[in-house]
Amino acid sequence: MDGGAAAIPDSLAACRRLDRDDPLAALSRRFRLPAGVVYLDGNSLGPLPRAAETAVRRATAREWGRSLVAGWNVDDWIGLPARTAERIAPLIGADSDEVACADSVSVNLFKLAAGALALRPDRKVLLAAEGDFPTDGYMLQGLSRLKPDIRIRSVSRLEIAGALSDDVAVLVLSHADYRTGALADLSSLSRQASAAGVLTLWDLSHTTGLTPIGLAAAGADMAVGCGYKYLNGGPGAPAFAFLARRHHEAFANPLSGWMGHQRPFDFAPGYAPAAGAARLMAGTPPILSLTALHAALELFEGLDPADLLARSRRLSDLFLARAAPTLEAHGFTCVSPALRQARGGHLAFAHPQAYPVVQALIAAGVVGDFRAPDLMRLGFSPLYLHRADVWAAADRFARIMETGAWRNPAFAEKQRVT
Amino acid sequence: MDGGAAAIPDSLAACRRLDRDDPLAALSRRFRLPAGVVYLDGNSLGPLPRAAETAVRRATAREWGRSLVAGWNVDDWIGLPARTAERIAPLIGADSDEVACADSVSVNLFKLAAGALALRPDRKVLLAAEGDFPTDGYMLQGLSRLKPDIRIRSVSRLEIAGALSDDVAVLVLSHADYRTGALADLSSLSRQASAAGVLTLWDLSHTTGLTPIGLAAAGADMAVGCGYKYLNGGPGAPAFAFLARRHHEAFANPLSGWMGHQRPFDFAPGYAPAAGAARLMAGTPPILSLTALHAALELFEGLDPADLLARSRRLSDLFLARAAPTLEAHGFTCVSPALRQARGGHLAFAHPQAYPVVQALIAAGVVGDFRAPDLMRLGFSPLYLHRADVWAAADRFARIMETGAWRNPAFAEKQRVT
Repeated sequence: MDGGAAAIPDSLAACRRLDRDDPLAALSRRFRLPAGVVYLDGNSLGPLPRAAETAVRRATAREWGRSLVAGWNVDDWIGLPARTAERIAPLIGADSDEVACADSVSVNLFKLAAGALALRPDRKVLLAAEGDFPTDGYMLQGLSRLKPDIRIRSVSRLEIAGALSDDVAVLVLSHADYRTGALADLSSLSRQASAAGVLTLWDLSHTTGLTPIGLAAAGADMAVGCGYKYLNGGPGAPAFAFLARRHHEAFANPLSGWMGHQRPFDFAPGYAPAAGAARLMAGTPPILSLTALHAALELFEGLDPADLLARSRRLSDLFLARAAPTLEAHGFTCVSPALRQARGGHLAFAHPQAYPVVQALIAAGVVGDFRAPDLMRLGFSPLYLHRADVWAAADRFARIMETGAWRNPAFAEKQRVT
Repeated sequence: MDGGAAAIPDSLAACRRLDRDDPLAALSRRFRLPAGVVYLDGNSLGPLPRAAETAVRRATAREWGRSLVAGWNVDDWIGLPARTAERIAPLIGADSDEVACADSVSVNLFKLAAGALALRPDRKVLLAAEGDFPTDGYMLQGLSRLKPDIRIRSVSRLEIAGALSDDVAVLVLSHADYRTGALADLSSLSRQASAAGVLTLWDLSHTTGLTPIGLAAAGADMAVGCGYKYLNGGPGAPAFAFLARRHHEAFANPLSGWMGHQRPFDFAPGYAPAAGAARLMAGTPPILSLTALHAALELFEGLDPADLLARSRRLSDLFLARAAPTLEAHGFTCVSPALRQARGGHLAFAHPQAYPVVQALIAAGVVGDFRAPDLMRLGFSPLYLHRADVWAAADRFARIMETGAWRNPAFAEKQRVT
C-alpha cells in the first residue's frame, strides 16, 4: 500500500476531491477537533476521540458514581488493563499475552531494562542511542545508579549495528527519532542484536498507531510505547510494555506490585508473578485515564497500519511539495529523512527562529511544536487530517513567513513547556 | 476534639437530630452517592465528589478537546501534580515542597525505599511488618532481587520498636493496618527509629484524609499514600510521596524520569533532579485521573483532620453499640483495637462466613468489603456518612443475620476481586 509517491494534488480543489474519495478520511468524524484548527501535533498529544469522551463520562458518573467499589467487578475495571493491551497487541505485531498496559513509558522502560539485565547476567552494558528521547536515557541512568556494575554506552543511531558487542546486555532504541522522525530498521536491528546475544528494548512511542510494527516477526525481545501520541489516549494516558513470550517464564519485574501478582486478592505475603506480560503491571491503574485510552483504541479496529502510514506519507509529501518555496526562501532545513521510506509520521525543520515561527503558526490555527534547540516539528496523523488541511497549513505558513508575522514580540518568549 | 466517646444516640430520631446539628454532615451533599446505599467502603474506594465529576468533564471536553497539546500550558497540566501535592501536604503535616503526586503507592514505595538504601549505604536491612498490605512487601522483594546484598526482615507490628537495630536502613510500615484498622504510633516510632539511625517510610494509604498526621513534627523521613481511599480521588487515582526536606539534597530517585528533571523541556541528555520532592516524579502523569484527585481534594479545605477522625469514631462507636447484639449472637469477633484511640477509620470482624455475609449486606445496600481469609471490613468515612446511615446499616445487618438471608447460594461464590 505504500509503494511510492502517489501524484501530489496541485490545487485545493484537487485535495478536496481526493479527500472525498479516500475511505480513511471518514475517520476524522470520530474526533472532536476545534473548528479551523489544523492539528499537526498528534505526535505529541493525539486529539479527543468522541468515543473516549463518552467512555470517560460514563466511567465517572456511572461506574465510579454508581457502582462505587463494585466497579472493579461489574464494570470490569480489573480487566481493563488486559482489554486495553488486547487492542494494542495487533498494532505492534504481538499477541495479547505479550503486552501489558500500565504506568508510563519511563517506568516501563525501567522494568524491562532491569529485567533484561537479569536475563544476561554476564553482560554489563546498556547500549543506547545518543539523541533518543531524554527520559529513556534518564531511566537508564537511574538504573545504573542502583546497579553500580552496569555501564551505559551511548552511540549515534548510525553506529548502533556496529556496537552490538558481547558485553552488551540490551539495546534500548527508539523506533522513530522524536526530533527527525527517522525510522530505525526494527526488523534488521532486532535480528542483528539477537545474533549477537543482545536483547532488544524498543521505544515505540512515535510509531505505534502510525506504522506497521512486527515485533514478533522481527524477533524483538521487549518494547515500550506511549498511549497519548498516535493512539490518542489522552494527556498522560497509561503506556504499554511488550515482552516476547519466550522470556515470560524467566523474566522478573523489579517493580513487582500487586497488580502483576498471580492472585492479588489472596493477599499472600510472597510475590508470585502473573502469567505472561501481565507480570509487568505494578500498582493500581488510573482507571479514568485508562478508560480514555481503551475507548480511543476502538478507532484502530479493522485498520491496517500500512494504510495509515501510506496516508500519513501522502500528507507529509503534500506539505513538503506545497511548502517547498517557503522553506527554501526562508532558510529552513528539513532534518527528516529525504527518503520517505525512512520517515515516520512527522517532519522537522531546523531554523534559528523556529520558536517564534511555531508560535505564529499556532496563533494562525496550525498547531505544531517546537523542539529545542531550533526545530519546528509538524506531525501528519492519518486519522483526522485531510489533504485540504495540509494545503491550508502550508498556505498559512507561507503567509506568516512572507508577512513576517512571526516577528511579533508576543511570539518570542519561551514560556511554553511542551 | 477527640477526647473520648460522646453519648451514643439510642434511636433513629436521635441520630437524625444529631446529624442535623453536625456541621460536618453538610459535606455529604458534595458527593454523588446512589440513593439508599450506605457506603462503608470509602477505605477501599472513596465515592464520587461532584467537583471531581465536573472537573473531569471539563478536562476531557474543554482542555483535551479544545486546548489540545496546549493544555500543558493554558490549562496548566504541567503544574497539576504540584497543585495536587499542595492540597495533600497539610493533611499529612508536611510542606508542599516535601510532597509529590505521581504514579502508584507501589511504585512510590520502590523509589523511596531504594533511595533510602543509598542514604544508609552501611546498612543492608529493610525492616517491614508482617501483615502489612501485600504490595508493599512485594515491592521490597523486587528491590531486594535487584540489590542482592539487601535483606528484608519482617516482624510483627508489636515487635517493630525492638527490631530497630543498627543494620536496619529503613523501616517500612503502614500507619493503619489494612485489615484491623489499628494505628501504629507514627510519632513515637519515627522518633525511636531516628534515634537508632533508621529511616522511616510510612504507608499512609489508610489514614490520609481521615486522621491527623504530623510527619514533619514526628521527624518522619519518607511516606507514601493513596489517592483513592479517604481522599476520594477516583479508581486508581495517582498516589503521593513525602520526602523530608533534610533529605532533598542527597536523595536520588532511581526512577529518574523526565517529569522529575530540573528542566524537562531542555531535553538535555543528562539527568538533573528537580528541587525538592518534585524529583520523585517519573513519567508523564495521567491527567484525567489526576484532575479527579485534584478536584476531590477541594473538600478538605478548611477541615481539621482531628475533627474528621472524631466524627469517624463517633460513627464506628455507634455501629459497635447498635450491632453488638447481632455480632455476639452470631459469633463475630471484632479484630479492630478495643481502644478507640488506637483505631483508624474502619472496623473488621472475623467470621467463618464473612464472605457471604458481606455479599448479602451489599445486596441490601450496605457496601463493605471482604478481606481474606475471613474478615468483614466496614469503613466509616466522616465526609459523607450520617449517624442515620450507620443506624440503618446495623439494622440491615441484624436482619440479614436473623433471617439467614446470607445463606442464599448466590452469595457463596467468590467471584469478586475486591
